[in-house]
Amino acid sequence: MAKLWTEPVTTALRADGLRVADIDTSATPGFLGGKQLGKSMLPERGEVLSVLQEKLFAHGRTGGNRRVLLILQGMDTAGKGGIVRHVIGSVDPQGVDHASFGVPTEEERAHDFLWRIRKRLPTAGQLGVFDRSHYEDVLVVRVHGLVPQSEWEQRYDLINAFEKEVADSGTTIVKVAMFVSLDEQKRRLRARLERPDKYWKFNPADITERAFWPEYQKAYQAVLDRTNTDYAPWYVLPADQKWYSRLAVTELLIDALTGLNLDWPGANFDVAEQLRLLDQS
Amino acid sequence: MAKLWTEPVTTALRADGLRVADIDTSATPGFLGGKQLGKSMLPERGEVLSVLQEKLFAHGRTGGNRRVLLILQGMDTAGKGGIVRHVIGSVDPQGVDHASFGVPTEEERAHDFLWRIRKRLPTAGQLGVFDRSHYEDVLVVRVHGLVPQSEWEQRYDLINAFEKEVADSGTTIVKVAMFVSLDEQKRRLRARLERPDKYWKFNPADITERAFWPEYQKAYQAVLDRTNTDYAPWYVLPADQKWYSRLAVTELLIDALTGLNLDWPGANFDVAEQLRLLDQS
Repeated sequence: MAKLWTEPVTTALRADGLRVADIDTSATPGFLGGKQLGKSMLPERGEVLSVLQEKLFAHGRTGGNRRVLLILQGMDTAGKGGIVRHVIGSVDPQGVDHASFGVPTEEERAHDFLWRIRKRLPTAGQLGVFDRSHYEDVLVVRVHGLVPQSEWEQRYDLINAFEKEVADSGTTIVKVAMFVSLDEQKRRLRARLERPDKYWKFNPADITERAFWPEYQKAYQAVLDRTNTDYAPWYVLPADQKWYSRLAVTELLIDALTGLNLDWPGANFDVAEQLRLLDQS
Repeated sequence: MAKLWTEPVTTALRADGLRVADIDTSATPGFLGGKQLGKSMLPERGEVLSVLQEKLFAHGRTGGNRRVLLILQGMDTAGKGGIVRHVIGSVDPQGVDHASFGVPTEEERAHDFLWRIRKRLPTAGQLGVFDRSHYEDVLVVRVHGLVPQSEWEQRYDLINAFEKEVADSGTTIVKVAMFVSLDEQKRRLRARLERPDKYWKFNPADITERAFWPEYQKAYQAVLDRTNTDYAPWYVLPADQKWYSRLAVTELLIDALTGLNLDWPGANFDVAEQLRLLDQS
């Protein structure tokens, strides 16, 4: 088979030193195959992911403590939902802890910003998925000044400390920031307004938020500059091309799970004896 | 297309008056198509289910309050996990609330038996899936006398009252009891012992539990006799043939969702105006 990637996706998307303003949102970093091949590869790579996820789940069921947490961030229409449906949808729902973080409820606002996040951390053996996350507390909150700067400024360090703690407890953290262009966002929003079966995905605020694009870019830059760590690295994902986004996140998860070096758990019972007992039963 | 079902699956599997001892676990009630066709139909029926589930989800996102809860019960190896993977796996993970109920933790035991169940009820727009449930508290608990009879005897009424409350709050409850034969269970347990990638699914207690088969049948009979209600009906699923189980549960969910009569939510904004604003943005 011809070489499909010029470099591992983890290298191609790594955020180190990257300027948000420089992102080519239509690019397909590292991938040589093009759209048709990229799309056609998704099911088979999803199958690889599914087997790795089942091993993680099997370990969780037999006393293992490892977990994987995928954190998805991105502007409206960046395709977070599509990742959940088309990438996470390829693995067994039993092994998925999915959490979506919207505008905080009154109860959530009454607590520290990480309170609601902690409650949804994946348990042993699970693949956790955060559709938005604690990063909203330094993105929308910062852009709209929902708390004073003195407060959100502290959060970068709080987030790093929190993620360190989560990583140290056995969770592999994979953070993906999805970027679409302002034009591509316009096309996607228009599609929602042109199809009655998509109206429910549309919110008039999605349009007013577009005026804050430069502020969001600045807020994302701060996130990448201040929370891109060895224990919880950011990957920057050009997301204009959905097939690439989905393939790339699949590869990121395959990489994370492969890195756990999990084989099927061994029997903690005498197989021959159990076969004998079974025959007699 | 030739007629594939002699009657709706909801009728074919309805538990009314059924004797557990009479169940033909290898049957395929109502379905005329046979294995090959049944298997080949699953992806397309899964797609139908997926669209219906997305409508439920869309309503949940736009103020709707409906939910669907699938409760799966069955002896070890009956195929509950396969239903989750192959039926629930066909819908968007965003819209699924999956909960698996094992041996209660110390904290759970310190509470009423419904406490841990209530915490996992699906939220608005979600398809909830319980892999085991509060029925364990009148099945394994009854069979092994884990609480006095005076206590488990009360639970049937408590369960009915609880499910009435859940149904009245907008949740369509679909309860599925899966039955395999003792021989088929033996085959499936042997398969787990013969494949190292399946060891993790095996528990020596699965064999010792086989000695309690008659007691379990009695306990299941009591469940069907005493908790089969209009607002939370039981469906009895012969589960020796996995393809049939999966197809039948898919059809049960399609029926439940179709019964909600949900169309795509209408726009709660002026579409033309939003299109104009979008163009200017």
